[in-house]
Amino acid sequence: MNRLLSSRLENLTPYVPGEQPQDQQYLKLNTNESPFPPSAEALRWAQENVRPLNLYSEPVSRELRAAMAQALRVSPDQVMMTNGSDEALNLAMVALCDDARPAAFPDITYGFYAVIARANGVPYEEVPLKDDFTVDVSALSAPGRTVFLANPNAPTGIPLPLSEVRKLLNADPDRAVVVDEAYVDFGGESAVSLLKEYDNLLVIGTFSKSRSLAGGRLGYAVGNPALIKALDTLRDSTNPYNINSYTQALGLAILKDEARVRENCRRIVQNREETAERLRALGFAVLPSRTNFVFAAHPTIDGGELYRRLKARGVLVRHFDKERIARYNRITIGTKEQMDRFFTILTELWEE
Amino acid sequence: MNRLLSSRLENLTPYVPGEQPQDQQYLKLNTNESPFPPSAEALRWAQENVRPLNLYSEPVSRELRAAMAQALRVSPDQVMMTNGSDEALNLAMVALCDDARPAAFPDITYGFYAVIARANGVPYEEVPLKDDFTVDVSALSAPGRTVFLANPNAPTGIPLPLSEVRKLLNADPDRAVVVDEAYVDFGGESAVSLLKEYDNLLVIGTFSKSRSLAGGRLGYAVGNPALIKALDTLRDSTNPYNINSYTQALGLAILKDEARVRENCRRIVQNREETAERLRALGFAVLPSRTNFVFAAHPTIDGGELYRRLKARGVLVRHFDKERIARYNRITIGTKEQMDRFFTILTELWEE
Repeated sequence: MNRLLSSRLENLTPYVPGEQPQDQQYLKLNTNESPFPPSAEALRWAQENVRPLNLYSEPVSRELRAAMAQALRVSPDQVMMTNGSDEALNLAMVALCDDARPAAFPDITYGFYAVIARANGVPYEEVPLKDDFTVDVSALSAPGRTVFLANPNAPTGIPLPLSEVRKLLNADPDRAVVVDEAYVDFGGESAVSLLKEYDNLLVIGTFSKSRSLAGGRLGYAVGNPALIKALDTLRDSTNPYNINSYTQALGLAILKDEARVRENCRRIVQNREETAERLRALGFAVLPSRTNFVFAAHPTIDGGELYRRLKARGVLVRHFDKERIARYNRITIGTKEQMDRFFTILTELWEE
Repeated sequence: MNRLLSSRLENLTPYVPGEQPQDQQYLKLNTNESPFPPSAEALRWAQENVRPLNLYSEPVSRELRAAMAQALRVSPDQVMMTNGSDEALNLAMVALCDDARPAAFPDITYGFYAVIARANGVPYEEVPLKDDFTVDVSALSAPGRTVFLANPNAPTGIPLPLSEVRKLLNADPDRAVVVDEAYVDFGGESAVSLLKEYDNLLVIGTFSKSRSLAGGRLGYAVGNPALIKALDTLRDSTNPYNINSYTQALGLAILKDEARVRENCRRIVQNREETAERLRALGFAVLPSRTNFVFAAHPTIDGGELYRRLKARGVLVRHFDKERIARYNRITIGTKEQMDRFFTILTELWEE
């Protein structure tokens, strides 16, 4: 089959998404989804307002883009909507990186950045996090490389203050800094407020976490109009009708329902703080998270071992088989009831 | 802004999709959509069976893939589902073409092939159709190039017999032939039946035409398992959760509703034949279509002029500003009522 394939495919290592078991038996704390489904009102509004499905979807998601711009307090030409934020990240990797502009990102971060760099033939450097798992801003600042920064970072959960993001932007105005704010609504500081000052900043967001729409596939990129126009041209040249009509309607419905999104975030943050406290009481080291997950390691039980024992008892958490973080597991914050069940099962493990 | 961008973006000419006016005032015969919405039963089934939207969609569309394989009488590892067939075409362009394997396609065909070749830095050759607008198979057969063939072709509507597709496949077993069958259900012959004999064949299909789901964004690629695996790895490395959960459910519902799809196709084919006859009676030359559109030229009225005069009267058809076909317009086949209205307005133009 290789005889038919482009040489570009030789270096592909597929991204391994978190397990998505189809039976609902598992307590699923492994992929950082919201435990709260979109509201019945939002679902009904989308049903009633979706464009007839035999017609093509609106190619540039015009109405949704305008609503998103309003929510972010930017102008519509600063926003592009995407088929999940992964699509926005991939478009940014293609548009902003090449042999002359390699990518740079922390060694411990969202694993997808390295995957899309390889898939697009982009050279990249992984800059080690400091020993305390915070971003090494001065090392990451080295000029000439397009920076991909998850803020707050994953899987650590640790946020970077905007003053540090500014340092990255200032260090080289001739390279782009892509800030992936998938988890920002759980206590981070958004860099959208810096867009007035920096035209080399691209902020990427998602509806998959705080907005309860992982299954709808909706993300966005926000930046300088000229940068957004370039990304939009690339999107239009590879997947012109990227967002289906139902998701466009549902995105609008969820933006109308901002109070509920904020209330859901408040509940998650409260559950996160309680979860961190209970884990510490069991002896775990827990990194200071501003996301909808915690990253925790036990001093004596290996991370992979704990992952497997939890899975055997019907609890899915995420373990990364990577040297620096092998002791840790990433645990998504669910409802209070889900976290109570998690701790019941976790403490049972101690008694085995 | 250029200072931030990859050199790859220099040659981008965005694809120009057909007009998608948001008001419903136009008689919309310009983008080859189905005039029949998905059935109420299919919509209800999808609503009742969609995975909760706060959870990620099933990454490889497993259930839908299996149902699609069954409908096509192939095995599930021969099928990949995509976010519209444009995504499948773009993945094929990346996976099957590079400097050593340029792309080749007719000079008059789906304009997206040239757009994705440029967007991905793939060299390509446009092989002129013959004077009768049929594909020049012997010229297109020249070895060493990955062939993209719309069959039936668009915007001509003319099908290529499978015996000719075989010639393309036989001419060079070491290159892939990508057959885009967007319109096959309206009277073409599917190359899926050739998959048992050829591992260098990739067939691409869509739910946007006969299956009434242009707004849902659903397409597929069918081929040898090793080829599908390579495409799937590329998909997984650039947009791992490419299809949202609602579209996965709706796709399943529509596959369960095959009898209705066939009946809709029968009605479109009947309307097409009547439309062609009525156009010929008005003096138009009409190419022999096996699709849900006709491509027609009047001996005295310029194609662009006719397009503009129809638009002024509330009818959208598609005109391509390209030398060989400038006299033509592509007219989507709608319901009987829509076509009657079209002819009422068209004949009024004669009396102006």
